[in-house]
Amino acid sequence: MTIPGKDPRLLPYGSTNLGMPLDLIQSLVVPNELFFVRSNGPTPEIDPANWHLQIDGNVERPVSLSLDDLKALPKQTITSFLECAGNSRSRLDPPAEGTEWKNDAAGTAVWGGTMLRNVLANAGVRDTTIDLVSQGADMPGMQRGLPLQVALDPNTMLVWEMNGAPLPVPHGGPVRLLVPRWAGIASTKWLIGLIASEQPFAGFWNFENYTLITEAGEHVLPVREMPVKSIISRPTTGETLDAGTHPVTGYAWSGHGAIAKVEVSVDGGGSWDQAEIVEEAGPLGWVRFAYQWSATPGMAKLRSRATDARGLVQPEKALWNAKGYLNNSIYEVSLTVR
Amino acid sequence: MTIPGKDPRLLPYGSTNLGMPLDLIQSLVVPNELFFVRSNGPTPEIDPANWHLQIDGNVERPVSLSLDDLKALPKQTITSFLECAGNSRSRLDPPAEGTEWKNDAAGTAVWGGTMLRNVLANAGVRDTTIDLVSQGADMPGMQRGLPLQVALDPNTMLVWEMNGAPLPVPHGGPVRLLVPRWAGIASTKWLIGLIASEQPFAGFWNFENYTLITEAGEHVLPVREMPVKSIISRPTTGETLDAGTHPVTGYAWSGHGAIAKVEVSVDGGGSWDQAEIVEEAGPLGWVRFAYQWSATPGMAKLRSRATDARGLVQPEKALWNAKGYLNNSIYEVSLTVR
Repeated sequence: MTIPGKDPRLLPYGSTNLGMPLDLIQSLVVPNELFFVRSNGPTPEIDPANWHLQIDGNVERPVSLSLDDLKALPKQTITSFLECAGNSRSRLDPPAEGTEWKNDAAGTAVWGGTMLRNVLANAGVRDTTIDLVSQGADMPGMQRGLPLQVALDPNTMLVWEMNGAPLPVPHGGPVRLLVPRWAGIASTKWLIGLIASEQPFAGFWNFENYTLITEAGEHVLPVREMPVKSIISRPTTGETLDAGTHPVTGYAWSGHGAIAKVEVSVDGGGSWDQAEIVEEAGPLGWVRFAYQWSATPGMAKLRSRATDARGLVQPEKALWNAKGYLNNSIYEVSLTVR
Repeated sequence: MTIPGKDPRLLPYGSTNLGMPLDLIQSLVVPNELFFVRSNGPTPEIDPANWHLQIDGNVERPVSLSLDDLKALPKQTITSFLECAGNSRSRLDPPAEGTEWKNDAAGTAVWGGTMLRNVLANAGVRDTTIDLVSQGADMPGMQRGLPLQVALDPNTMLVWEMNGAPLPVPHGGPVRLLVPRWAGIASTKWLIGLIASEQPFAGFWNFENYTLITEAGEHVLPVREMPVKSIISRPTTGETLDAGTHPVTGYAWSGHGAIAKVEVSVDGGGSWDQAEIVEEAGPLGWVRFAYQWSATPGMAKLRSRATDARGLVQPEKALWNAKGYLNNSIYEVSLTVR
């Protein structure tokens, strides 16, 4: 089964998911046809003309908004990365439970819409709200709780545009939530409802999934912001290159702050040099980095290591958890120079 | 050296810190003279009549507020726990670096003051602010960055009252920040300045300390909310009790939501029964629990295990980190029944 509008070079994981190997792109912004797709349920068909967003619960006045109502609100555009919490799960040792994403469930796009807090103000969401529970149209149980303080962040949006085009259906069109910095699951697709709740929401997608679970099965922490990470996109593992100068390029991002620096090692982590940030688009997006490598014959191990504006850095080995979320360990590319 | 106004039964850790063994209390609210003290620097002397809070940086209009100015703002009172990020560090295996707190660096008080967002609104803090950097009067470098969205939370306060009394000097008087749910370090004592910053703040108390650091020395995650935890306060390890019925009592709290339940095991974790929540005061405070135990002669191992409203639960073994923060592993009391 193919997903309409998507590039055939994307890697399928089941029928509703597509990974984007990072060597397919060289731009900062990922075009819509290449952007990775992660859908936990079936893809609903929604006629934009009939779409409504219902806001109720702990509010002064429940409201129902059409797409035209939404578009009448102040528009904002931000460049933000989205990464699936399970990205790079396949690199965990020992293996963890879940879709075996390589490093292909992350991307950056330009998102257009309105601040979520604009519609929350319309409804008069009360201060006593703990979580705002979002409802997707894909499944009755597709609900997520977002803490009110995050819902009120000026970067948290209702989005109807992706890279200038109407938000494509595989990405949640006509309207999705966008919670920059947080794992993709927070950005509910095909959004149709928001319920202000005075209780923390502990539903399936907030508790059974998207929590850090110990080997003994204890759910100990929620998954929220994605940690600092970088991936070398080119060259790729298994390649053979001629000796000489080659660019080592890749992407770096963090849910805890802008990228402060990216270092590259061409000797498997023995020594590190700073790479150049060749393209950036604000603190919520990823950056593109490049490093000029003088390759000499033999086996080579290339690594990249990003540090964010809070000083947080990628570890050699990320925290293991039973569902394999938040793997930001340093990625190594192994290749041959002749 | 003693700290004025504090009970001599508290346990000193250096000259500025005092731990409160939980068997000293039986109430939900900890009286001021028993509340634990954690000061990273010297204790400054501030005349409340001369105290001012300076707010500047990324604001429309810098303001300077006196204590009277502050008290003219709408007052609010909340019951909230405070726990040092390093509480229970001494139970980590292998040992971690830092003050070897037992389970004595946590407490709950009734805090009086005004919402921080009231003064931020006065100064016109701009939306582009990332962190609000607080300055304590104890040391020039005593600065912490608090993400704006947390600073705007209605529970984040400027506090000048503790359990109805003027905020005592060891607890940050005349005025401190109070960030409920978060590790105590976020609640800057002897607050004299707030600077709105467009950059994430990565100073000593946000980066070198109060981050989760791997064995290899990589700073990977910030310390923020305290995880779900419970401690049995009575009976205590080493006691000898007569066979018969005894209450097992203690406290449970979580920075991720209200306490949903507390379970007690009287056989070292083999089986669990639900304890009774005998006292609670809202989702930001801790709860007091009790369980009736039919003790039979022999060695006994008592445990408690709390679950919060998000379903998160205490683990057998908490995540180890080099500075030993956030240890919420299950605590066991070993005693003898004759």
